[in-house]
Amino acid sequence: MNEISSNNHSVFFNEAGYPYLAQLLTPAAYSKLFILVDTNTYTHCLPSFLAQLATDVPFEIIEFEAGESNKNLETCMHIWQAMTELNGDRKSAVINLGGGVVTDLGGFIASTFKRGIDYINVPTTLLAMVDASVGGKNGIDLGHLKNQIGTITNPKAVFINTQFLETLPQLEMRSGLAEMLKHGLILDRDYWNQFKDLSQLTTDDLDLLIYKSVVLKNNVVTEDQTETGIRKALNFGHTLGHAIESHCMISEHLPTLLHGEAVAIGMLLESYISLEMNLLTIEEYTEIKNVLLGMYEFPEFTADDIQNITDLLIYDKKNEFGIIQFCLLNGIGDVKINQQVDNKLIFKAFKDYKK
Amino acid sequence: MNEISSNNHSVFFNEAGYPYLAQLLTPAAYSKLFILVDTNTYTHCLPSFLAQLATDVPFEIIEFEAGESNKNLETCMHIWQAMTELNGDRKSAVINLGGGVVTDLGGFIASTFKRGIDYINVPTTLLAMVDASVGGKNGIDLGHLKNQIGTITNPKAVFINTQFLETLPQLEMRSGLAEMLKHGLILDRDYWNQFKDLSQLTTDDLDLLIYKSVVLKNNVVTEDQTETGIRKALNFGHTLGHAIESHCMISEHLPTLLHGEAVAIGMLLESYISLEMNLLTIEEYTEIKNVLLGMYEFPEFTADDIQNITDLLIYDKKNEFGIIQFCLLNGIGDVKINQQVDNKLIFKAFKDYKK
Repeated sequence: MNEISSNNHSVFFNEAGYPYLAQLLTPAAYSKLFILVDTNTYTHCLPSFLAQLATDVPFEIIEFEAGESNKNLETCMHIWQAMTELNGDRKSAVINLGGGVVTDLGGFIASTFKRGIDYINVPTTLLAMVDASVGGKNGIDLGHLKNQIGTITNPKAVFINTQFLETLPQLEMRSGLAEMLKHGLILDRDYWNQFKDLSQLTTDDLDLLIYKSVVLKNNVVTEDQTETGIRKALNFGHTLGHAIESHCMISEHLPTLLHGEAVAIGMLLESYISLEMNLLTIEEYTEIKNVLLGMYEFPEFTADDIQNITDLLIYDKKNEFGIIQFCLLNGIGDVKINQQVDNKLIFKAFKDYKK
Repeated sequence: MNEISSNNHSVFFNEAGYPYLAQLLTPAAYSKLFILVDTNTYTHCLPSFLAQLATDVPFEIIEFEAGESNKNLETCMHIWQAMTELNGDRKSAVINLGGGVVTDLGGFIASTFKRGIDYINVPTTLLAMVDASVGGKNGIDLGHLKNQIGTITNPKAVFINTQFLETLPQLEMRSGLAEMLKHGLILDRDYWNQFKDLSQLTTDDLDLLIYKSVVLKNNVVTEDQTETGIRKALNFGHTLGHAIESHCMISEHLPTLLHGEAVAIGMLLESYISLEMNLLTIEEYTEIKNVLLGMYEFPEFTADDIQNITDLLIYDKKNEFGIIQFCLLNGIGDVKINQQVDNKLIFKAFKDYKK
């Protein structure tokens, strides 16, 4: 699989990436490397990464507690302080080795440390591979609001090694699958079709599906880096998904959801809304619903939950002039962006949910 | 005075700016304005600014405690939260009405809120007018380290109104003058000459000097936006100046210095180093020293102070590969960037200081 060229950087796949990484990390280019890991990737991914890392640049490991609840300013403050104490300068670089929390937080840390230093992403979860490899978005949460603070800054390079998926829990695999399903639903009918039966999937098939997923997303973000138009398509499932994810973080009776699980729920609800707005046929909707319900265990929401979730929509980053903007499906494989949806229809979607 | 075109934005002067501001702030362009002020500009500048502000866009005032010690993450967190609670969205904009602390902090807040919203600078101190109008640098302090966290993001527009200087304390005026002197010293002998006798200065003269100062800096930052080369010239006086400013914030026996005062000390010391490295003549050095000592009351540093100040140099943002990089004068009106200086010479400069 050849590397994929994105905005100012490339995405490399599997073993083919390591020689390029070695070429990049020379003492002439960098004074110091900060390898950022969380408590999970410290154990499961760092040893094999270090075994394959060939560089004469001195490096330091910076570790923080795993979990979305640590993707906040307090963690950033500790890491910036550690980088300062370890004499990080403008020629330092950050290597983010981990899932979406590590790549989101590490990208923000690098893009603001001394007004911006280079960073490299080595995604270790399926979600981070297909979602965070291209597009340059980073961010941290503000309270329970996801990614309220961040920048759009491209990494210097991304190295995807699907070997890391061998130690990834099934739940995390399903979380990543949601973004891949999304890329099919919004952009490519044929790609979507490949997910209708996963029982025969081999490791090589998965590698190709990941590769294709990055290609699909990359086509969008290279066309619209700053999300003024078509890039909004990538928000399908995310308007309700983010609100559901935030609400579940706060709620005591609901389980904390992984990002992809929340997005899967969001996609189901927003597909229903697309159906009701005559953008999807009932056959298409049923097909989507069957795939999603077959793959995920969705929680039950009470009337209070639903009210709280819809109240959170006002904080969505896509909103403009106080109006909530949805991206809806226009048939499988196509989208309509900047759609306004009546509140009643949102409540109706929750009623149909899981039925 | 015509507007000055910089990287992606223009700088407007005095009354001529208000019609353009009105044209910019339409309800079609922005959903909400957050006018950021500190406790000083809330009292001294906000009333006259609001009296001249013609817009139908709803606005909110956000105020924070004045002073460099509040240019930190905690203040950012409160302001981001306030903007969130006040339903700020991607079509909101921030208007920074204040000195360097407000424009530095407000620029960082805007460039990272929901991954970046527009902001407008209305500098109210001489320092902010001549230093923060062009170049796009923003930042906050990390502990006592100045501007460790920030981005380079250009404002949408800058409006300089020298009327605000009428209520500015003399000390603040002198702080701003230091950056103007710097622009002469590094870039323009003729401009520097105009500061040798300020006794006859009229308000109109000052306006022209401010205008010319912005033009001089603008020539540099439009040539080298990301500070890979010539922009480093603007750091003359800042390598030691920043360390002195940081040290005085921590020290109990030294006064807290304004940025320009610390830079003035830095310029004196770095001019001495330039002399010792045969880049300045003794006549030029004496001329610089006389102007600076005539204008500023410099504090006395103990041997411990000097040691602590030099220890802080390792954190300078210009450092590369652990090497401290000075920008020195190469005669008045010219510079040499990326200069390494022996530690002994730095101590020697402090010995000559104020003699």
